[in-house]
Amino acid sequence: MNIPDDAFYRLLSKALRERSGETLTRVLYRALRQAILDGRLQAHSRLPGSRTLAQELSLSRNTVNAVLDQLTTEGYLLRDRQGSRVASLPSAAAEEPTEAEFRLPARLKALPTGTRRDSPAFAFTPGTPAVNYFPLPLWRRLIDRVLREEGHALLGYGESAGERPLREAIARHLALSRGIHCEAGQVIITEGALEGLNLCTQLLSESGQLAWLEDPGYAGARSAFVARGLQIEGMEIDEEGMQFADHTARSPRLIFTSPSHQFPLGSLMSAARRLALLQFAHSTGAWIIEDDYDSEFRYSSEPIPAMLGMQPDAPVVYLGTFSKTLFPSLRIGFVVMPKALAKAMQPAIHSLLRGGHRTEQLALAHFIEEGHYARHLASMRRLYRKRQGQLRDALKQELTHPHTVSGGEGGMHLTVHLEGIDDSWVAQAARQYQLAPAALSRYYLDPASGKTGLVLGYGNTSASRFASAIRTLNKLITQALSQSGQG
Amino acid sequence: MNIPDDAFYRLLSKALRERSGETLTRVLYRALRQAILDGRLQAHSRLPGSRTLAQELSLSRNTVNAVLDQLTTEGYLLRDRQGSRVASLPSAAAEEPTEAEFRLPARLKALPTGTRRDSPAFAFTPGTPAVNYFPLPLWRRLIDRVLREEGHALLGYGESAGERPLREAIARHLALSRGIHCEAGQVIITEGALEGLNLCTQLLSESGQLAWLEDPGYAGARSAFVARGLQIEGMEIDEEGMQFADHTARSPRLIFTSPSHQFPLGSLMSAARRLALLQFAHSTGAWIIEDDYDSEFRYSSEPIPAMLGMQPDAPVVYLGTFSKTLFPSLRIGFVVMPKALAKAMQPAIHSLLRGGHRTEQLALAHFIEEGHYARHLASMRRLYRKRQGQLRDALKQELTHPHTVSGGEGGMHLTVHLEGIDDSWVAQAARQYQLAPAALSRYYLDPASGKTGLVLGYGNTSASRFASAIRTLNKLITQALSQSGQG
Repeated sequence: MNIPDDAFYRLLSKALRERSGETLTRVLYRALRQAILDGRLQAHSRLPGSRTLAQELSLSRNTVNAVLDQLTTEGYLLRDRQGSRVASLPSAAAEEPTEAEFRLPARLKALPTGTRRDSPAFAFTPGTPAVNYFPLPLWRRLIDRVLREEGHALLGYGESAGERPLREAIARHLALSRGIHCEAGQVIITEGALEGLNLCTQLLSESGQLAWLEDPGYAGARSAFVARGLQIEGMEIDEEGMQFADHTARSPRLIFTSPSHQFPLGSLMSAARRLALLQFAHSTGAWIIEDDYDSEFRYSSEPIPAMLGMQPDAPVVYLGTFSKTLFPSLRIGFVVMPKALAKAMQPAIHSLLRGGHRTEQLALAHFIEEGHYARHLASMRRLYRKRQGQLRDALKQELTHPHTVSGGEGGMHLTVHLEGIDDSWVAQAARQYQLAPAALSRYYLDPASGKTGLVLGYGNTSASRFASAIRTLNKLITQALSQSGQG
Repeated sequence: MNIPDDAFYRLLSKALRERSGETLTRVLYRALRQAILDGRLQAHSRLPGSRTLAQELSLSRNTVNAVLDQLTTEGYLLRDRQGSRVASLPSAAAEEPTEAEFRLPARLKALPTGTRRDSPAFAFTPGTPAVNYFPLPLWRRLIDRVLREEGHALLGYGESAGERPLREAIARHLALSRGIHCEAGQVIITEGALEGLNLCTQLLSESGQLAWLEDPGYAGARSAFVARGLQIEGMEIDEEGMQFADHTARSPRLIFTSPSHQFPLGSLMSAARRLALLQFAHSTGAWIIEDDYDSEFRYSSEPIPAMLGMQPDAPVVYLGTFSKTLFPSLRIGFVVMPKALAKAMQPAIHSLLRGGHRTEQLALAHFIEEGHYARHLASMRRLYRKRQGQLRDALKQELTHPHTVSGGEGGMHLTVHLEGIDDSWVAQAARQYQLAPAALSRYYLDPASGKTGLVLGYGNTSASRFASAIRTLNKLITQALSQSGQG
């Protein structure tokens, strides 16, 4: 393109004619810049003077000058006393990268598939509480009260480890309900349990170290460990919880366990095994990450005190979350560390976390301190206990295939063991009926050799749906079995 | 302790007498459990029958039985036809771990010190916007409207990558204001820019790979890279932005840059250098992480279009945040990926993120779509432009030490270069006057050899304070110089 020629003005006039809502300055700027970038305006070409340009394009000279100034600032044009010249720019790389170039890092190949998050959640989705029982009008009032009372003071950065009143409320709650005596300084507010897990692996392990995971177990822990580059060893589960041998070829650095209600099998880790595990961790320098995701809901006895509270300065980091006790989209969880660890990690926590979500954190602090939390827990405990009984009845009546049920002393799910079925197929097929039980095998590190069955969450599922839903699943199981008989 | 003897009953009676607010069941449970854990009740000891216990302690038999049941469930007691015996438990490890055991992993030694987060922020704190200008009553109404309209549907899990309406609103805003043409599917909502950075390093790099960082630069990027185990090379800055050589001994995997307003020096990366950097990244398989933290605020010209928009499928991941344009505690940021990358990373994103904070995300979507965001940006741009001029004037009048000022085409901070002062001392000493300028040297990878000066954030500082605050800083600088003269 020679300048100034007709093609040049046509190009610009066209852009100006076709503008929609943008300012003339913006349109002219974009057209000129694009012409430079794609080489239609070549390096060293001289542009007409601003007076000429303004006349030819029927624009004000101010507009033209603003555009030339901007392009000069950004380095597309060079200006001297004779006017503007196009700068000499490296040619833009034209080839589009192919999709094949975008591969996950090798380390992330082992990431477990994420859970489907239907909204609203399908019946039987594990891990979703009865959100329709959450006292939303009260919550709205608390949120609004905090926004009104605290005003603009809430908008700035808060403490990295979370709002002090919430950390104090959690410490008080844990002392009463989980047997953990801790100070607010040991409590770190996180984005749900997952950020807590990421923080622990970040602070306590190095890439390449060994982590023990319950097998079957919580997929989120696997994600966090895989993402951190840890090596993973699956630990079998029996009725006393996670099994382990005192003498191992290679000691783990992290031990992930859910001792108060193993997910998904439901075992309660016995006192003897808890103490043995604590001792093992002590003597090998390992850290236990205690996942206490739903132990507030225990029906046959009082909630089981946490491992963190069993010994002073036990090598345990405790993970809690409000996703199961209140609602998932709140995304507030917490980590409790032994005092000395919390102190040592303070600078790192300060660098790695940013706090924030102060309105919700303060609203939650009020919610706990004013007794709403304890009341909500009590009423959910009654609801879930009842639902669990009703689900057991429905299983007895409607599930004709041989099965056993585990996981039943508390929580929000039952695990139905069904030998030799293609549970992933059943889980997938159930989705067309708006049912989302999880395949038991997918909680195993190696799904192909894991036990099969269905994990049924009843947190979000009304009991009135149980009978018909189990009948549907029963049919799907029949179908799965006949298909595998054919295969 | 022989059982049943007086000491045993005294122990329990004492606990029951001293209870405060807890149930008798809870107190008896705790006292017995503690006695077992600390060895006062030894393994195999037989407990008195529940009738005897109830009589001696003046409790109902139901209470006693509930406690014995619970302890049996947890494995502290064994029950047979003769009654209850204490289980044989591994002895609790008694030694308290010393603080020395809790050391940060070697990798984390290089974490930069976090910024102090005063609440409310002190004057001159870099990176804090004028939160008192945020339209809080409007925001309260939007939050409340979303909570009312969406109700319980909002409480469950949402999309991992964030609420669709917000991602759409961001895509539309970026097209207009940042020259980025993208679809909602390419936008991933994150917890501020920091989670975006963590996600990018997670997805695009392996521990041990090389990352280029601007030096001086944003400490958050250093935290993310250090935490991920990357090796870091600092890149010098000149008036055209980050300098680099085309031919390097070792190619970086990640290149972190803030091309539209380098932090903290303020350079604008020239078009030539942007294109060269894009080409370099293309040919070496590197990824550019473009930090666009405050480029909406540009005063001498229109905001500079982002690098991501310069080429189709440029190897650029774009980081944006609302922490600087709205308010920090909102903790909403976003990542924009090239289409093919977003598609390839979808399963991993699904495993690594959880979504959530749906109320704020939807309120923010309304805030953008209803035009409040554009209006707020425009009024903040006017405010900051004016404040920057006023701060320059105050510096001219009150800062008597030889200095130069950079970083001044936009944003919310000015960088004052002051050669040979102990800037960390000045920054620390300023805190007693409620002033929090940052020492320029602390943004360098090696603060000891970095340039010295003060980074003055004016986002949160009223112009009426400028003159007296600069006078105070001027005195502190005099003091710092005389101290180093003495040293």
